[in-house]
Amino acid sequence: MSDMVRSVDVVRVRGPRRGAEQDRAATEEPLEIRLHGRPFAVVMRTPGADRELAAGFLLAEQVIRSADDLGTIEYCTDQQSRNAPGKGNGFSAIGARSAAGSSNVVNVTLMDHERVERALVDRRQVTTNASCGMCGRLTIESLMTHLPPIDAAWTMDAAAIVALPARLRAAQAAFDETGGLHAAGLFAADGRLIDTAEDVGRHNAVDKVIGRMLLREQLPLSAHALCVSGRTSFEIVQKAAIAGIPLVAAVSAPSSLAIDLARESGVTLVGFVRDEGFNIYAHAHRIVG
Amino acid sequence: MSDMVRSVDVVRVRGPRRGAEQDRAATEEPLEIRLHGRPFAVVMRTPGADRELAAGFLLAEQVIRSADDLGTIEYCTDQQSRNAPGKGNGFSAIGARSAAGSSNVVNVTLMDHERVERALVDRRQVTTNASCGMCGRLTIESLMTHLPPIDAAWTMDAAAIVALPARLRAAQAAFDETGGLHAAGLFAADGRLIDTAEDVGRHNAVDKVIGRMLLREQLPLSAHALCVSGRTSFEIVQKAAIAGIPLVAAVSAPSSLAIDLARESGVTLVGFVRDEGFNIYAHAHRIVG
Repeated sequence: MSDMVRSVDVVRVRGPRRGAEQDRAATEEPLEIRLHGRPFAVVMRTPGADRELAAGFLLAEQVIRSADDLGTIEYCTDQQSRNAPGKGNGFSAIGARSAAGSSNVVNVTLMDHERVERALVDRRQVTTNASCGMCGRLTIESLMTHLPPIDAAWTMDAAAIVALPARLRAAQAAFDETGGLHAAGLFAADGRLIDTAEDVGRHNAVDKVIGRMLLREQLPLSAHALCVSGRTSFEIVQKAAIAGIPLVAAVSAPSSLAIDLARESGVTLVGFVRDEGFNIYAHAHRIVG
Repeated sequence: MSDMVRSVDVVRVRGPRRGAEQDRAATEEPLEIRLHGRPFAVVMRTPGADRELAAGFLLAEQVIRSADDLGTIEYCTDQQSRNAPGKGNGFSAIGARSAAGSSNVVNVTLMDHERVERALVDRRQVTTNASCGMCGRLTIESLMTHLPPIDAAWTMDAAAIVALPARLRAAQAAFDETGGLHAAGLFAADGRLIDTAEDVGRHNAVDKVIGRMLLREQLPLSAHALCVSGRTSFEIVQKAAIAGIPLVAAVSAPSSLAIDLARESGVTLVGFVRDEGFNIYAHAHRIVG
């Protein structure tokens, strides 16, 4: 098993049967890309081919045009990470090593120093993202201190969990037309659909349903479950936890970091919800029957 | 048909039959979120529930904690967009109106001015993203001027297109274990697999395969086709076009902006590749047979 996959404990629910088993989850960890030692970007990625990822990312960002523009791409050692100029701006908080021991920081040098300055200035000015909740400053540990406590004594029936994807899909009018939209739905403890949103971005669909409840002054959403149409990344669990949602269910697989965050923040995390059952990755006590 | 869905012309290929038809694509457009008139973030989203999206995004970014922290959330008019302080830093280049005529800029005010300053400073310091190629400064128009010309006279057989997903999946060792990884593959014109990468992020998988070829000094990739396991967003086509790849195929649907960019940049865009056929959304001349 490589760095790309991690073994995880799951509770497998199949009809009336429930058993503890081992499963495998895709590894998700932050990679910090530095330019000449200075923070440039943090990308949530699966470890492996990190030098290639950094090169491809810098090409897509139009920082480089070809291999000729590149000097070196090297993993930072722990010592370098601690002493980096990034310290104090939040980047230093990112674990320099992955759970599997590999480095999560690469330093890139370019042949042309002016290109470095221009890239860092451009980046500072655009200050944008694709609805990504992982903002450098946020390690799982630092996030914990900002999360509202998950306070929910209610339970959800296994039969109600199994029914969530079909109820979400039934409300997903636009998906049927294009096959191109993700959906997120908020549900009551009895499985009743409260609200739903669709978007090309899974994170946006989650922001939309949570944002609507925020505008209605309904936060924290401690009485609700969130169901998403795709996979569960770190950011989906993060958005749910910040809104106080105690249960997240998804049709597909969770990442390793989504599981870690769910366990630490008290969120019940369910994956692979199908007609015949599902897997519970964290806080199984909220699911009964 | 709402703003969320757009009608598009496609060439539908089913076995030996090929016909022009109308299809529907999920709308993808940038939404600029401003704080007190100053640029805060650009999110690639499907229009609709934009105020809710902005509220949910600011909650997840921990800029606000509840509705009490919010003043107003309003669409900017064209006039405001033109005169905004964002001008000159790249944000002004974003179309203030969507194709459907709705606004693509919202301005948010907070009750507490100190919170605004802190949010803008925090954001400036982290300068990060989730491998998003849409960096504010890049409208489709401004991007065109930076793209290498797509220079490829070769064609690909329809039968080779149909076989791409299975070849990609066969090479996707980790996917079979976790169900949680996206894949991207580079193929030769005869359908032979050249290289593949997997990642929790679709964009990262594309960056990895392109980055590896860049490190081997193989750019531009004008002799290659790219196949991705999921949907095609603007950013996927953008990354391909910057690397000079003339053909992008995907198992699922493209977004409206992916189609627009493919048409303008000269990239052949194929979607819904299944055993029985596929749809061509741009530059169908590169697919024969």
